Amino acid sequence: MDAMQDIDVLISEVGPRDGLQSIPTLLPLDLKKAWITAEAACGVREIEVGSFVPASLLPQLADTAEVVKHAKSIPGLTVAVLVPNLRGAQAAIAAGADKITLPVSASETHSLRNVRRTHDQMIDEATAIAALIRTLPAAERPQFEGGLSTAFGCTIEGDIPDATLIDLAERLMAAGCDEVGLSDTSGYADPRQVRRLVRLVRAAVGKDKLTGLHLHNTRGLGLANALAGLEEGITTLDASLGGLGGCPFAPGASGNIVTEDLAFMLEAMGLKTGIDLAGLLAVRDALDQWLPGEAIFGFTAKAGLPVGFQRQA
Amino acid sequence: MDAMQDIDVLISEVGPRDGLQSIPTLLPLDLKKAWITAEAACGVREIEVGSFVPASLLPQLADTAEVVKHAKSIPGLTVAVLVPNLRGAQAAIAAGADKITLPVSASETHSLRNVRRTHDQMIDEATAIAALIRTLPAAERPQFEGGLSTAFGCTIEGDIPDATLIDLAERLMAAGCDEVGLSDTSGYADPRQVRRLVRLVRAAVGKDKLTGLHLHNTRGLGLANALAGLEEGITTLDASLGGLGGCPFAPGASGNIVTEDLAFMLEAMGLKTGIDLAGLLAVRDALDQWLPGEAIFGFTAKAGLPVGFQRQA
Repeated sequence: MDAMQDIDVLISEVGPRDGLQSIPTLLPLDLKKAWITAEAACGVREIEVGSFVPASLLPQLADTAEVVKHAKSIPGLTVAVLVPNLRGAQAAIAAGADKITLPVSASETHSLRNVRRTHDQMIDEATAIAALIRTLPAAERPQFEGGLSTAFGCTIEGDIPDATLIDLAERLMAAGCDEVGLSDTSGYADPRQVRRLVRLVRAAVGKDKLTGLHLHNTRGLGLANALAGLEEGITTLDASLGGLGGCPFAPGASGNIVTEDLAFMLEAMGLKTGIDLAGLLAVRDALDQWLPGEAIFGFTAKAGLPVGFQRQA
Repeated sequence: MDAMQDIDVLISEVGPRDGLQSIPTLLPLDLKKAWITAEAACGVREIEVGSFVPASLLPQLADTAEVVKHAKSIPGLTVAVLVPNLRGAQAAIAAGADKITLPVSASETHSLRNVRRTHDQMIDEATAIAALIRTLPAAERPQFEGGLSTAFGCTIEGDIPDATLIDLAERLMAAGCDEVGLSDTSGYADPRQVRRLVRLVRAAVGKDKLTGLHLHNTRGLGLANALAGLEEGITTLDASLGGLGGCPFAPGASGNIVTEDLAFMLEAMGLKTGIDLAGLLAVRDALDQWLPGEAIFGFTAKAGLPVGFQRQA
């Protein structure tokens, strides 16, 4: 699967995971399938469809195995999932996920609250997951990402020392991750910091080992931060349709960057996303109807596409 | 008045003009004065306090002369106004405005709808205003800006040819403007276009003759566009507290970039704005109470400032 073949920037839709885990409404399995099918049909190449966590913790994502199975039936789609530990990775591999992300919080306090594990324990999980993946035939191995959450600051700890971030990135790569990503879990990032930390982590692990950012729009800076990342050479950006999402363990930190606003920005800049914008806005409308009472965000849907904006086929 | 003396970026608050003209509520004079006083007290150095247009067209701004008089009593504040023509400039000068902006729409269709004048007629107005200003003693001359509205595209005409924009910029400078500005009236701008057009217009009129941008957040790209402008060396950014504002003649185009989100982004990046962020958020709260039933925007106010964000005195 080469999602980057004919596009400049890969938008990785995380709404079915990050969005749905942050709202009380349980979206039925058939609507999750419909959402994923519809967004993939608009040209979205990668979707994080769920998380392998105990159903008692996140009942919204209890059907992730079935969602993965459905998503795997869509040609050309990279099916990503989040796992908190080895047990989650086992389930993800059994379900056939193409990409597995283990979130490792740069803030140890946040890590303890979010997954009840220290940094050392999370590195042990990463090592065990990488070992498990190596037991698979090469063609069946999922991509394994270490996701450095709270990389840009933590609502509990505040600033994260550079040394902590670099150390974790290096240890995750040594543990056997294929790459690391930086996540602005708390919505603290600013464009200058995005540039600085992307450069810093790349200097430690290699340019090709940090290609993606997971940004939130908590303080309205999401797309400015995305732009800063793009200008540093980042090629994968997580986003959530309608801006659904957030972190239930980081109070006040809500809202991934909005897929449709991001896609509009990139296409307006002349960067190819492979996404049919008008189609994407229609999926957003459907999602809005499937989630009555839940707030969704974003500006492009309300304003509409500019006159003559016809870059799509 | 040297507003840039100890700051890196000048945020020019346009809410009392662009914000109030776009909502039906008439904010009473005493509350306009309170708003301006409070925002200036937070360190905002320039405020566009109103517009000298016939009260029949914009009753919300009918008291602009009195607002200017009040604002002029605030030490260190640059008092800016918008004028649609020579008659407006006469009133602005009589009131004592420090800065006068004549909006000239790059889209002639928009110009005809907005101020009922062709490009040639607007250049004639600029020429007449510049002549009027030259009759004043040097110390009393207001700064005179030609504001190129719909510079990034028009909801009626669509794309604006580069040649049209360059021609208008050159003609405004030849007519006697001190500088030109670019306005994204329609919310069509993207970061790449911001960079391109800033360079293009500067190549025509000189780098020091284009220092400011007026951006909207219509499709969520406002701060990304501001970042692109900053990286091109732009030093003045218009913004509106709570994102009030828009253009009543450009349907669907609403919402200036949000002063408090912009100020947060700049300060987070380590750029000095001279603005007390916590104080600014308090003024926003007051404005929200003064305008019951009117929507205000922005993210930082809802999320709060990050833990340990103590760059202010």
